Amino acid sequence: MKIKKVDHIGIAVNSIDEAVKLYTSVLGLKVASMEEVPEQKARTAIIPIGETKIELLESTAPDGAIARHIERRGEGLHHIALEVDNVQEMLDVLAGAGIALIDTKPRKGVEGSTIAFIHPKSTKILLEIMEPQK
Amino acid sequence: MKIKKVDHIGIAVNSIDEAVKLYTSVLGLKVASMEEVPEQKARTAIIPIGETKIELLESTAPDGAIARHIERRGEGLHHIALEVDNVQEMLDVLAGAGIALIDTKPRKGVEGSTIAFIHPKSTKILLEIMEPQK
Repeated sequence: MKIKKVDHIGIAVNSIDEAVKLYTSVLGLKVASMEEVPEQKARTAIIPIGETKIELLESTAPDGAIARHIERRGEGLHHIALEVDNVQEMLDVLAGAGIALIDTKPRKGVEGSTIAFIHPKSTKILLEIMEPQK
Repeated sequence: MKIKKVDHIGIAVNSIDEAVKLYTSVLGLKVASMEEVPEQKARTAIIPIGETKIELLESTAPDGAIARHIERRGEGLHHIALEVDNVQEMLDVLAGAGIALIDTKPRKGVEGSTIAFIHPKSTKILLEIMEPQK
């Protein structure tokens, strides 16, 4: 069981169109893709930086996780995602170590990936583990 | 002016000794170094993941930036640091684009690096730009 890399850093924003300007016009980065993620009631813009990515997250519904996060804590850093070999095996390791899970089973993420969220209670941060589409 | 990579992801914690267990015992990662950073009233543990690093930050003084962050927002994601070619040039670009800065001039960071912090007002997140020691 190995952590391969930080796949992405999720940032909750009120407006992707506004936030994206900093990363593109000012910092000179490029948006690789934009995607609607109905399961998370959000739309995302993916901005690669080296081997990792910034994932801007804008809520598409007032009761979505991103909207609630912004309501409680304002715009800002939301989660980080670590790429692992196998999400199910990592969930077993984490559960075995007494780490609180949000998803007890892997579910589908963007671009055919498999993902699971870990509860910040144990990890201090909202942590996603993911494996890309095979 | 180019963003090279995400150098690190800073996480504010009450206790490095406690937080480090998740990353080492459970996730199987290794602490590369621990350092006291008097200018930031913090001590840090650096945990490499691929080309980037987790930087755990524990306050060493109740009036330090990390202590105040935890008081306001709890433990969690604190900042991300982007590696650039030249911190001074990037500060000029950011200031020219009307981005609010915390540090108007580069200052010394850990391991001989040169750093500057950008104000979250414009960037939504606390952003550090840095260049490693030449």
